[in-house]
Amino acid sequence: MSLSFQKYQGLGNDFLLLDNRQQPTLRLSPQEARHWCDRHFGVGADGVIFLLAGTGDCDYQMRMYNADGSVAEMCGNGIRCLAKFIFELEGRTCGETVSYRIDTLAGVMVPHIQADGQVTVDMGTPQLLAQQIPTTLTAPDAKVIEVPLTVADRPWLVTCVSMGNPHCVTFVEDVAAIPLETLGPLFEHHAVFPQRTNTEFVQVLGGDRLRMRVWERGAGMTLACGTGACATVVAAVLTGRLKADAAGQAQATVELPGGDLHIRWDVHSQHLYMTGPAVAVFRGTLDTQ
Amino acid sequence: MSLSFQKYQGLGNDFLLLDNRQQPTLRLSPQEARHWCDRHFGVGADGVIFLLAGTGDCDYQMRMYNADGSVAEMCGNGIRCLAKFIFELEGRTCGETVSYRIDTLAGVMVPHIQADGQVTVDMGTPQLLAQQIPTTLTAPDAKVIEVPLTVADRPWLVTCVSMGNPHCVTFVEDVAAIPLETLGPLFEHHAVFPQRTNTEFVQVLGGDRLRMRVWERGAGMTLACGTGACATVVAAVLTGRLKADAAGQAQATVELPGGDLHIRWDVHSQHLYMTGPAVAVFRGTLDTQ
Repeated sequence: MSLSFQKYQGLGNDFLLLDNRQQPTLRLSPQEARHWCDRHFGVGADGVIFLLAGTGDCDYQMRMYNADGSVAEMCGNGIRCLAKFIFELEGRTCGETVSYRIDTLAGVMVPHIQADGQVTVDMGTPQLLAQQIPTTLTAPDAKVIEVPLTVADRPWLVTCVSMGNPHCVTFVEDVAAIPLETLGPLFEHHAVFPQRTNTEFVQVLGGDRLRMRVWERGAGMTLACGTGACATVVAAVLTGRLKADAAGQAQATVELPGGDLHIRWDVHSQHLYMTGPAVAVFRGTLDTQ
Repeated sequence: MSLSFQKYQGLGNDFLLLDNRQQPTLRLSPQEARHWCDRHFGVGADGVIFLLAGTGDCDYQMRMYNADGSVAEMCGNGIRCLAKFIFELEGRTCGETVSYRIDTLAGVMVPHIQADGQVTVDMGTPQLLAQQIPTTLTAPDAKVIEVPLTVADRPWLVTCVSMGNPHCVTFVEDVAAIPLETLGPLFEHHAVFPQRTNTEFVQVLGGDRLRMRVWERGAGMTLACGTGACATVVAAVLTGRLKADAAGQAQATVELPGGDLHIRWDVHSQHLYMTGPAVAVFRGTLDTQ
């Protein structure tokens, strides 16, 4: 059977997008998804995303496999790519703005396509108490803001934020000088993080630009991490490095190795809005049994 | 401009194949090739191979960029993929056998497609003298057959073969137990190899099967190395582990992490013939400026 797909990427996080609106079941099995995600023997991608017809009050449904064939509930870079895929399937043209209500396994998401083609997603609200991170660095019901933590025989001032997953943010003078390959695993597996942690090192560049390098829990050094960029902006506000404007919006551009994300934190609703690119890379056709 | 391509792979070594027969110049620049070979922002491949119209006594020409945009003279896995690409472009069907004379920057190559779809390529003749490898392990005009070499405080019995590039082959009881990530660089950069060396650890499985793991000079641990598989068979013959048959053919199947290669050494002509798979993975279309 011949199967058409499109590859999209957001900050180097890349996905095979399949139009699955006419079929009752997913067009690839987990085993097939794993095969086609293989970068040498298949097409190569970080995951496969299926667009399904809408249901109830949603315009569409999103279902997704990770590269290993496991089910992904949702993915910030992935839903941006899916939104652009829908935009192009619907024949819309550059400059149009539109929002889609999308049913995912992590709830309804509403990506919004901007006039410049970038996509904004509501990333939800951060949780800040030690027991929510979780971490034992402070009392369970206290926030973790610039608390000393010794790693590799050096004290670091860390700020912890949960975006549904744990983040440990450390501001440094020069992120390029951080030996992330060696420090990352030591933070990730530190005894104060019972569920391990994602680890971000962040440099304030001025002009509301932050430069971040990330060590992802279970994945190591990656090109980009959307929840990490959100956690970074929250940590910048908590530590006084970034201020909300008169309308209660704290905003920054976060430079990641894979590109820039714009993060806006609405301090009234506490919701974080992430805006970033999603780009069509190529169209392809593959044969399945 | 919309550009069609096919991705092929041989033992996990993957290439974008472009039909360039109708154009006077290559359809991608080195910079574009590098972009499209990127596995996160592009299509992802180890290189781009262009099929050009024949010239003189050759059926076709092959030109190739590596993933970094540099010019590749030739590539054993790549020319197998090119031969299958031509076979399919010509509308030939499974079971047909055919040879093509192909002009490459390393001279004329004649890949032969077998009835089972595998492709055989003449890999040329090995050179065995120390000065040809090059290595200072023995006198310049002596062969290097099971010569002791100390690496990581352990003596290894190494056999050296040049296939145009240097190989250092060590037979071991269990290749899986070899810490290739740490030993590989120590062999590669050992003072006795003035141009560094590719390094193969090989286990004799019996039934003319050899299992090989390779550390490639400049590339590290890879899924497959065609010249390494050839060097391994030569080393097996030189050390008495493999015998030529009555017709003067020494043959073995070499198991590599990416799959199997069949190597035949004609001891009269000294030519090595490598047979292996080349598989179409998917068709794609990309847009260039």
